[in-house]
Amino acid sequence: MGGGHGLHATLSALRTLHDSLDVDTITAVVTVADNGGSSGRLRQQFGVLPPGDLRMALAALCGEDEWGQTWAQLFQHRFGGEGDMQGHAIGNLVLVGLWELMGDHVRALDWAGTLLGARGRVLPMATTPMDITALVRDQQSQGEVVRTVRGQVEVASAAGDILSVALDPVAPEACPEAVQAILTAEWVVLGPGSWFTSVIPHLMVPGLRQALLTTSARIVVVLNLTDQEGETQGFGPCDHVRALARHAPGLEVHAVVADRGAVPDVEALQRDVAALGATLVLDDVAVAGEPRHDPVRLAATLRQLMTW
Amino acid sequence: MGGGHGLHATLSALRTLHDSLDVDTITAVVTVADNGGSSGRLRQQFGVLPPGDLRMALAALCGEDEWGQTWAQLFQHRFGGEGDMQGHAIGNLVLVGLWELMGDHVRALDWAGTLLGARGRVLPMATTPMDITALVRDQQSQGEVVRTVRGQVEVASAAGDILSVALDPVAPEACPEAVQAILTAEWVVLGPGSWFTSVIPHLMVPGLRQALLTTSARIVVVLNLTDQEGETQGFGPCDHVRALARHAPGLEVHAVVADRGAVPDVEALQRDVAALGATLVLDDVAVAGEPRHDPVRLAATLRQLMTW
Repeated sequence: MGGGHGLHATLSALRTLHDSLDVDTITAVVTVADNGGSSGRLRQQFGVLPPGDLRMALAALCGEDEWGQTWAQLFQHRFGGEGDMQGHAIGNLVLVGLWELMGDHVRALDWAGTLLGARGRVLPMATTPMDITALVRDQQSQGEVVRTVRGQVEVASAAGDILSVALDPVAPEACPEAVQAILTAEWVVLGPGSWFTSVIPHLMVPGLRQALLTTSARIVVVLNLTDQEGETQGFGPCDHVRALARHAPGLEVHAVVADRGAVPDVEALQRDVAALGATLVLDDVAVAGEPRHDPVRLAATLRQLMTW
Repeated sequence: MGGGHGLHATLSALRTLHDSLDVDTITAVVTVADNGGSSGRLRQQFGVLPPGDLRMALAALCGEDEWGQTWAQLFQHRFGGEGDMQGHAIGNLVLVGLWELMGDHVRALDWAGTLLGARGRVLPMATTPMDITALVRDQQSQGEVVRTVRGQVEVASAAGDILSVALDPVAPEACPEAVQAILTAEWVVLGPGSWFTSVIPHLMVPGLRQALLTTSARIVVVLNLTDQEGETQGFGPCDHVRALARHAPGLEVHAVVADRGAVPDVEALQRDVAALGATLVLDDVAVAGEPRHDPVRLAATLRQLMTW
């Protein structure tokens, strides 16, 4: 569960684990609140789900052979030039075309997966587009001000501290196939990714939250490697865990995965992780010297966790 | 060889003949002079070949199973709405994306064919976009005026009689793979289609004309069922044959296929057909009561011709 580059990293990791798990059972559950870039333009023009994060998830699940890699590249390719097509990713346009043709987001995503020869399944977290809103606290000369910011792009770049996020509509209907996937899963992986705009939104969809609270699946949270300008500026690992916990009271987590090099105070993090009922798994999961997850290292950590 | 709906009909016919020919050896050679609609916009914006007629040819060669038909539908699907995507066919965008990605029109078309599971091969007649120009004679109150009209859309809708067409650049380089296909073919089918803007342009590409004059392949011309408003207004079967002959001096044709119901004067047509060295094949190749070719009937006629 997640969105954007974080989910791409997790899926890229999981799809290599064909010796440990049946990769055809991988289900990506993707945020659908994006309002920026190619996705934002298509969403506005066609009233469809923002396709970008769904496209990235499909690309991550494409095969490693020439066919799969060519498809993945084509799906991710963005038009250049200066005209009205500029910036649109081809995969976004294919997804919107399939949605127009079939009138059913899930059926169209399943078709796209088949056409690409992708392993597993990509589902939206809800079947209608939505917006993210955030309560943001600003330090101003007159003192503190708390204001509401609306829109994924706006929340992700908000100046000030995000106190909480919510959805508009506040209680969107969960994608039924996503609920089913959570209820029947053995493992659920949450994160990494933009914490308030890609990871936590899932917890604000009532159907998904309920499924996460009742499933027998073990829930693994993969923490971000660093803070993100705007959205989580100044956040350390503990802040990430606490923000998640605040948005999902009662959620029981099996393990929290953090990069060894990204945790300044292990004991403090252990306390926050224990409050979720979880074990802290410290490992090398980052690309050396870069603030992004290495799919091979992350895969090794997840394999170990899942085969314990 | 052709373009648009006419070529789509021929390819749809040929691809059903898997009992009589190896359908994987079918090669579509497609005009690349379109300057209207989605193709025109993309050509202008990206400096690529106009993709529309290439897309239609690929769609025609898609399989008859659910996979092939879904792909064909998706490729042919045009965006609705009111925004800047309106009217773009998904397949056009996929082709332009592949061209951007690979920097090679032929390689990208081969990939598109593979991805779609299309039988045969689709090639552009030339590897650079071009324009069609026409000498058009107008009857005006002051007498006759001959003017030059430029652009496929403009030529196709020109008021007056088209005397001849040419290309700009006048001698574009033929696609080498298309030349090779003509030289090694057993059969070449020319038409049906927009006579001056989809069929005759092939003859104005020096490399293709030379290949048609020297190949040992038997050349079959499939005549249109009716005239086309603007482009060939008032044209009967004889006018079509003569226009073709005027643009390809020395071309030897094996057979000319015409619909039985579309030939008012069989003897006159036989004379014009004989002037090309060809036999007239009269058969029922139209959809009953409609001015379009029936792929099943056209296939039956072509099969008979090719297995004589």
